[in-house]
Amino acid sequence: MFIRFITTGGTIDKIYFDDLSQFEVGESQVQHILAEGLAAFDFDVVPLMHKDSLQVTDEDRRLLHDFIEKDDATHFIITHGTDTMPLTAEALMDLDGKTIVFTGALTPARFKATDAMFNVGMAVAAVQVAKPGVYIAMSGQVFEAGAVRKNRAENRFEAIDRN
Amino acid sequence: MFIRFITTGGTIDKIYFDDLSQFEVGESQVQHILAEGLAAFDFDVVPLMHKDSLQVTDEDRRLLHDFIEKDDATHFIITHGTDTMPLTAEALMDLDGKTIVFTGALTPARFKATDAMFNVGMAVAAVQVAKPGVYIAMSGQVFEAGAVRKNRAENRFEAIDRN
Amino acid sequence: MFIRFITTGGTIDKIYFDDLSQFEVGESQVQHILAEGLAAFDFDVVPLMHKDSLQVTDEDRRLLHDFIEKDDATHFIITHGTDTMPLTAEALMDLDGKTIVFTGALTPARFKATDAMFNVGMAVAAVQVAKPGVYIAMSGQVFEAGAVRKNRAENRFEAIDRN
Amino acid sequence: MFIRFITTGGTIDKIYFDDLSQFEVGESQVQHILAEGLAAFDFDVVPLMHKDSLQVTDEDRRLLHDFIEKDDATHFIITHGTDTMPLTAEALMDLDGKTIVFTGALTPARFKATDAMFNVGMAVAAVQVAKPGVYIAMSGQVFEAGAVRKNRAENRFEAIDRN
Repeated sequence: MFIRFITTGGTIDKIYFDDLSQFEVGESQVQHILAEGLAAFDFDVVPLMHKDSLQVTDEDRRLLHDFIEKDDATHFIITHGTDTMPLTAEALMDLDGKTIVFTGALTPARFKATDAMFNVGMAVAAVQVAKPGVYIAMSGQVFEAGAVRKNRAENRFEAIDRN
Repeated sequence: MFIRFITTGGTIDKIYFDDLSQFEVGESQVQHILAEGLAAFDFDVVPLMHKDSLQVTDEDRRLLHDFIEKDDATHFIITHGTDTMPLTAEALMDLDGKTIVFTGALTPARFKATDAMFNVGMAVAAVQVAKPGVYIAMSGQVFEAGAVRKNRAENRFEAIDRN
Repeated sequence: MFIRFITTGGTIDKIYFDDLSQFEVGESQVQHILAEGLAAFDFDVVPLMHKDSLQVTDEDRRLLHDFIEKDDATHFIITHGTDTMPLTAEALMDLDGKTIVFTGALTPARFKATDAMFNVGMAVAAVQVAKPGVYIAMSGQVFEAGAVRKNRAENRFEAIDRN
Repeated sequence: MFIRFITTGGTIDKIYFDDLSQFEVGESQVQHILAEGLAAFDFDVVPLMHKDSLQVTDEDRRLLHDFIEKDDATHFIITHGTDTMPLTAEALMDLDGKTIVFTGALTPARFKATDAMFNVGMAVAAVQVAKPGVYIAMSGQVFEAGAVRKNRAENRFEAIDRN
């Protein structure tokens, strides 16, 4: 099995710069997480963007869409900021024959207490087991794209009905 | 979704007792891992045994088998020592209509660097996405019971052919 | 031995708020650090301010000065933001018969990799061993107030000559 | 300032070997702790022994004594198992002109929750600030050699009277 990780930024990769007293998107933590998880499969990591979720544009979504469409790989995990993750996931729903799982974190991976490692673990299992399609692995659940939103007040992802 | 966690002991739950200079199976770490993973689904945790993998007997496997068979729940995650995890998984393969995922850790969950959180994340996704059956989520992969072994020399799980 | 901890904010206590994508001073981490350090002495913690180092005013320094002056305690550890820590330390140099150690962190205590626990350990030892005076425990060193600065380019504290 | 670290084993450096389901003394964690603590002073680390505290013999104590006596360095931090740390400290009390601080941990440094980093921080401050002599930095306190014991029932170090 081969999994292509695409990183786009977001909370999961944030670091703290003391001299600025602020927090910015840093290098991807995916490799560290896979190493600590003792993951034994083939993968690579493509750092496509370094953006906060709210800065991701439709142009960026097209870029991501085209990158995956042209890629020979069939299994993708995309790390992404949480606020617009559902929107970016929907933008890939027309892609056929690809299993794509989005994940990220509500607390940066560099924190002692973080959901990052758990979430990447979920994504790694989901991308192997699910049939082709676009998914979001957050809040301990695997959602289908188009049927999930972030509940900001509760700070979690939840299923929605779109009848 | 409701997931029943059954804990049986193993490396994942080990703690260190300084006065004895030794390591024993402690309280289950599953709740801590789910809390840190910000998991938002219904679950409970049944601490069925506190055993090292090599101490698990066929009697114990029957106990586990009967517990699951009589349980109304349909989705189970079982934390288990790694050495005999494949054996215990095989002992449950005749159960119908249940999705059962085994996981554990090669390094205790209480360590700074541990595969425990990643593995439980994998198991949580696998049990939701996979069709009924028995699986092992370790080493970054989701294996079917009966087709996986622990490679002790390499300290990882790997698929086997059983033609 | 009794040690009074006074917390004033700064990087050591920072937390991350995902919904704002920003970092703010949170509850003091001193109690958690002392618990993890298995510290067995009498202490209490007074949360006097919640400020970034650059927001600490001369008015705040007077408040801190007067608080310590009137306090019966003789041993103080003050957690403080790093940028103006030397300045606040100097403002207390006229206090007699008190041993006062400033410390803080260049990376928040809630991070996996942080100097917070090490620094508080240093401060706890320094306040017990040093003769009355005002000190800064940072960068693996115990400096006397008035003879130390933060080297922002190198992100560390260093001794200065003031001949 | 130059500090010579001498490591002798003990809980602080223990690691877990899954294949043996047991815990052994591993490589010294001192360098990692100093790096995480952002310590900016000159030091080196001499791994003199890899022993559990109860295995340290009088012969080992003579070896340690002679090593320090012949060494040009004047400031030493010795990591040591906790059970016989007071005994080894006493064996060095006749050394003149050296400041020697013992420390260690009640929980291995590789654990998420460990007193190791706090204790090494204490030792680093104590060795700089204290006058020549032999000390133990444990349980949030700096004790003089000959006036401290480990209370095994309470799992902490405490002062003793030897009138």
